[in-house]
Amino acid sequence: MPDLRRDPIVGRWVIISTERAGRPRDFYPAEPARQPSTARCPFCPGQESLTPNEVLAYRPQGGTANSPGWTVRVVPNKYPALQVEGEMGREGIGLYDRMNGVGAHEVIIETPDHKDMLADLPAKHITGVLRAYRDRMADLKRDLRFRYILVFKNHGAAAGATLEHTHSQLIALPVIPTSVLTELDSCRAHYQHKERCIYCDIIRQELSDRERIVAENPEFVCVTPFASRYPFEMWILPKRHAAYFEESQESQLEMLALILSETLRRMDRAVRRPAYNFVLHTSPLHEKTGDYYHWHIELIPKLTPVAGFQSGTDFYINPVTPEEAAKFLREIDL
Amino acid sequence: MPDLRRDPIVGRWVIISTERAGRPRDFYPAEPARQPSTARCPFCPGQESLTPNEVLAYRPQGGTANSPGWTVRVVPNKYPALQVEGEMGREGIGLYDRMNGVGAHEVIIETPDHKDMLADLPAKHITGVLRAYRDRMADLKRDLRFRYILVFKNHGAAAGATLEHTHSQLIALPVIPTSVLTELDSCRAHYQHKERCIYCDIIRQELSDRERIVAENPEFVCVTPFASRYPFEMWILPKRHAAYFEESQESQLEMLALILSETLRRMDRAVRRPAYNFVLHTSPLHEKTGDYYHWHIELIPKLTPVAGFQSGTDFYINPVTPEEAAKFLREIDL
Repeated sequence: MPDLRRDPIVGRWVIISTERAGRPRDFYPAEPARQPSTARCPFCPGQESLTPNEVLAYRPQGGTANSPGWTVRVVPNKYPALQVEGEMGREGIGLYDRMNGVGAHEVIIETPDHKDMLADLPAKHITGVLRAYRDRMADLKRDLRFRYILVFKNHGAAAGATLEHTHSQLIALPVIPTSVLTELDSCRAHYQHKERCIYCDIIRQELSDRERIVAENPEFVCVTPFASRYPFEMWILPKRHAAYFEESQESQLEMLALILSETLRRMDRAVRRPAYNFVLHTSPLHEKTGDYYHWHIELIPKLTPVAGFQSGTDFYINPVTPEEAAKFLREIDL
Repeated sequence: MPDLRRDPIVGRWVIISTERAGRPRDFYPAEPARQPSTARCPFCPGQESLTPNEVLAYRPQGGTANSPGWTVRVVPNKYPALQVEGEMGREGIGLYDRMNGVGAHEVIIETPDHKDMLADLPAKHITGVLRAYRDRMADLKRDLRFRYILVFKNHGAAAGATLEHTHSQLIALPVIPTSVLTELDSCRAHYQHKERCIYCDIIRQELSDRERIVAENPEFVCVTPFASRYPFEMWILPKRHAAYFEESQESQLEMLALILSETLRRMDRAVRRPAYNFVLHTSPLHEKTGDYYHWHIELIPKLTPVAGFQSGTDFYINPVTPEEAAKFLREIDL
């Protein structure tokens, strides 16, 4: 059973999950992961038996589970960071806090086609991927052990992807990440002072300034944030206040697919198809944050050589102004 | 002039410093930095004119500034992230806060020998490197614009080093990084409840448990932290309570050099000379934190392929238990 441990000073939870790797002596400076050929790719149709049994799949023409015919397929991660079965087992060890690594770790296979990237898919297909995020979140929310669901995508080896076939991941956690707690605290304080959502205030200011806008549609806006940590960092935010991604309506998912597709294509054209990560920031599952939190997606292309001291300090040096990056992205001819 | 910008939600300051890179269109997926040959290395003796004028150097045999004969040399970074001259220029822009990027950015050249790594140097020489950190901090502390001094080392291209000749860096900031503020808040709260330093409590527990101890001497201890984010992450802490690194006595620097040398050599033997970062966590310069803060060094080898979604969430999955890592490091035959 993996271990969830809390840093006694900064409150950060870490998953210690030794089942995913060998003993310490196997730890030598990392080499790029080897990619299986298409013939053995566990995410390709016809090879459904290479993954654990699916938990969700869209099959427009019907068909049986764990067989071809799907457009989007969700399976448990074969090497999960957390385990679904088990008690929470919270305990203190002197100053320290730990609990059992109970949770879910799933893979959203975004398309049957091994060669397509998310940015290449029609917006209608991307809507299906986003619907899979939403439907899995809504289902997992019923398990009251889980307090937060982390949805993210690592695209490309330089962003941490170990399989080439395009996919996203979902981790359901029995704790709330400190980054989310920090956002929540700040949003709550702003709301208490002003009775307004701080993200709504930011969106109003950005829509008025316009110099950091990358893309926009009736429901969503994509901006380079004022204090961007990385060159070409982008945030996609719903214009209408909403705290819980999993409550999104179909029409909103369609609009989100449109702006996500446009954003990825602008990025790909601007900086030559980089590796990237995106992370969905959404409300904890069972907290009443509806008034003050505002879900959004943070997208970070991997352009600068490597994270140096930043990983230890949360202090960043960014060599490109967000205004220049936004202008460059906005003016790309798609 | 670089820009310092504050994220309005999480409070994180970011340096936007465009002088260090070209225009946005130069931003393509990163290639490894090319290393100048020894003949043109700006950190080698005889080539002192390739760096800005030195701000500190130790010359045991005497000699003139910016000439050979030094053992440790400190120079301003040729491509500084911040500028020493200028007003603070704090201002609000709607919701946002910015200020001028006023600060110092210096390079500590740890040895004249191009081929040596820090771990290869005699402990006595490493004492000189640590003395240079201390002396520069004590000097920069007199400039009341500066509130925090970040000392760190990127070793190896995979850890963000762009020059091969071994060196550390120092950035004097007019703001306090959020990571430090978080540590301070937690330490203050612990002190208010218990009238004890939380790091002192951790050290007592670790010295009693002993399962996460890597190395120890009369003044310092090196442990793998209970909630290690990365495989083989290590913290070096003074056993005696101390908040300000820059107040360290010569005898303490000697003991720190011994444990740092031992730690780096154990790491190099355990995981084949990896790239690594270390960051000195010390008190802000002008805050009265003496009772509750405890300076220390956090050392992170770069072993796992890359940071994926972690960079956006401050949530980590570590495939090696700190207890296994400590045992493996401790049992290395040096």
